[in-house]
Amino acid sequence: MKRISILGSTGSIGTQTLDVVAMHPEAFEVDGLAAGNNTALLLEQVRRFKPRRVSVSTKELAEEIRSSLPAGVELYSGSEGLVEIAAGGDAETVVTALVGSVGLQSTLAAIEAGRHIGLANKETLVTAGHLVTELAGRKGVKLLPVDSEHSAIFQCLNGENREDVASITITASGGSFRDYKREELKHVTVEDALRHPNWSMGAKITIDSATMVNKGLEVIEAHHLFALPYEQIDVLLHPESIIHSYVEFRDSSIIAQLGTPDMRVPIQYALTYPDRWLSPAKRLSLAQVASLTFREMDYERYPALKMAIDCGIAGGTFTTAFNAANEVAVARFLRGEIPFLRIDEIIDEVLQRHHNAADPGLEQIHLCDMASRELAAVL
Amino acid sequence: MKRISILGSTGSIGTQTLDVVAMHPEAFEVDGLAAGNNTALLLEQVRRFKPRRVSVSTKELAEEIRSSLPAGVELYSGSEGLVEIAAGGDAETVVTALVGSVGLQSTLAAIEAGRHIGLANKETLVTAGHLVTELAGRKGVKLLPVDSEHSAIFQCLNGENREDVASITITASGGSFRDYKREELKHVTVEDALRHPNWSMGAKITIDSATMVNKGLEVIEAHHLFALPYEQIDVLLHPESIIHSYVEFRDSSIIAQLGTPDMRVPIQYALTYPDRWLSPAKRLSLAQVASLTFREMDYERYPALKMAIDCGIAGGTFTTAFNAANEVAVARFLRGEIPFLRIDEIIDEVLQRHHNAADPGLEQIHLCDMASRELAAVL
Repeated sequence: MKRISILGSTGSIGTQTLDVVAMHPEAFEVDGLAAGNNTALLLEQVRRFKPRRVSVSTKELAEEIRSSLPAGVELYSGSEGLVEIAAGGDAETVVTALVGSVGLQSTLAAIEAGRHIGLANKETLVTAGHLVTELAGRKGVKLLPVDSEHSAIFQCLNGENREDVASITITASGGSFRDYKREELKHVTVEDALRHPNWSMGAKITIDSATMVNKGLEVIEAHHLFALPYEQIDVLLHPESIIHSYVEFRDSSIIAQLGTPDMRVPIQYALTYPDRWLSPAKRLSLAQVASLTFREMDYERYPALKMAIDCGIAGGTFTTAFNAANEVAVARFLRGEIPFLRIDEIIDEVLQRHHNAADPGLEQIHLCDMASRELAAVL
Repeated sequence: MKRISILGSTGSIGTQTLDVVAMHPEAFEVDGLAAGNNTALLLEQVRRFKPRRVSVSTKELAEEIRSSLPAGVELYSGSEGLVEIAAGGDAETVVTALVGSVGLQSTLAAIEAGRHIGLANKETLVTAGHLVTELAGRKGVKLLPVDSEHSAIFQCLNGENREDVASITITASGGSFRDYKREELKHVTVEDALRHPNWSMGAKITIDSATMVNKGLEVIEAHHLFALPYEQIDVLLHPESIIHSYVEFRDSSIIAQLGTPDMRVPIQYALTYPDRWLSPAKRLSLAQVASLTFREMDYERYPALKMAIDCGIAGGTFTTAFNAANEVAVARFLRGEIPFLRIDEIIDEVLQRHHNAADPGLEQIHLCDMASRELAAVL
């Protein structure tokens, strides 16, 4: 039995993680579930998966659901609750499926407690990658990527020597607006932006795909996960999202991972690594797909990607500022407060005013995160 | 220093193996070279790579070149010479780059002597796969595939559990006549057939690509090399030859190996496995390639492929008969004796008259090989 806990159990990755658990009931046990505000779904998950410990976002919500929980289930709330689900109990692997840099503290707590991490919360590595990877290394904890791109690269590195890697290439579908010219983006709506061509994902990541911020975060995540300099990380437009990413080795061989777009596959791999278990994901038929296409990334069309990579290269708190500005800008776009193209501009303006701190500790990261959010909220 | 010997040093794979050696002079030493009739090239190779032992196809050729060899170089000839280069000396790896089932005896001798095998002579596994793999297993000898397709699959299996493999798919360019309908093949010439769209290879394998016999041999080779039943081995038309082959695992993930068509890459990998060394092969740019296409294999268009797989499934000496009939038919086509479409017919007629022997020993294989050749020569 593999015991797992999930941070963000009612979100897109959280529910799909529980789908994987449900497919292998003989193999998985759920120790803890941390949700946000969706208590109805959480209670359903509690009935079905019988966790011993749950957490919700606030004390008030905790009191609301207390009487609906089976006897013996421990109940927590807030950020202490997240840390409790991450680091308390006896899960072997914690899936960090929170959205945004809010996942940082609990991820660090889980690593500190020696849990392996199924890492879906890329903002954690973006804001504090050097701290997270250093701690994971010290604790002998595996960071198992759940993102399809990073899972692909992780799989392509199986059995290979890291020093033989020439480069990695992260593929990008191009997002909801890939067939629009930049000037056509002026008046796009939230509804348009949420229509991703290939993947069914949460709202924030779908907007991040449309701005290509998501690839920027993924490049920074890959830099930390695979300990590669930015000049060895490429991004390639691949509209079909069939090749999820690939590694080029120094002998010129490329090893790629392919599949239908189904997040349950990388989620399951993170939980079963180094083994592979049966999956109900639709099998890929390349004959049916018939054609895969590729084109160079267009950094003019997607300025946020360029900004992200520049922040990664600059280091320090630049990536924290980038991520915080983006989180706020996306939330404002989703609330209808700003037009789509304003997301890039807000990120740019926050970065222009950013005072960088090299090799920051958690406190500095936190302060930068707060300050960047405040600024992005009023720009 | 890795010491290697090459059986078939003046052929396409042999010369490219020496190209790889020349790129890493600090890492490789050539122990033995066995050539056929191209003594001029062999002597050039002797001057450049300083082997201690050479062999040519006949005693007469050996006497012709004896005085041109540097002092101390041992000279052999004929099939005993092949065995001497394969099993004598002190090579760590023997590259078997002979064409046709003539490579069987020397390959077995090399394995018996504990040499790892860089296997480019697929006919060896086709005619006597069960004997070759059994002996290799018993002697702890690695069979390192040199064929680009099998090298691809071998690379995709790195670090994976064999029991997690759902299937393997061998890609096929379609050969020189892939854009011809079957009825348009009636009057094609030898020159037309030798014009392969992607790969520069020897004459026999180029014709085998046009008939799709080559994929048939590769399917049988893969069956033996990777210990997979035929129902787990697929063939897919992929005109660009960029994805060299791939493995599907039971979680639906596909791992593929890609690259520009350059045989020096799989040759080098067989010699450096599990490491990867720098290679001068042209790097693959998928953005430049822009599009990869795929379509189902058409077994009506390529009946020889179906016959090969049926022979593999039937087992016994069927694959020996298939291979022998094809070798003779291709030679006859190359000599201008028969039209292109007669190759398929001759194979079919030899198979119709074949008396199968289950689980054959070497002697039975040899007799079947001879009988099938005799028949194919007069049909």
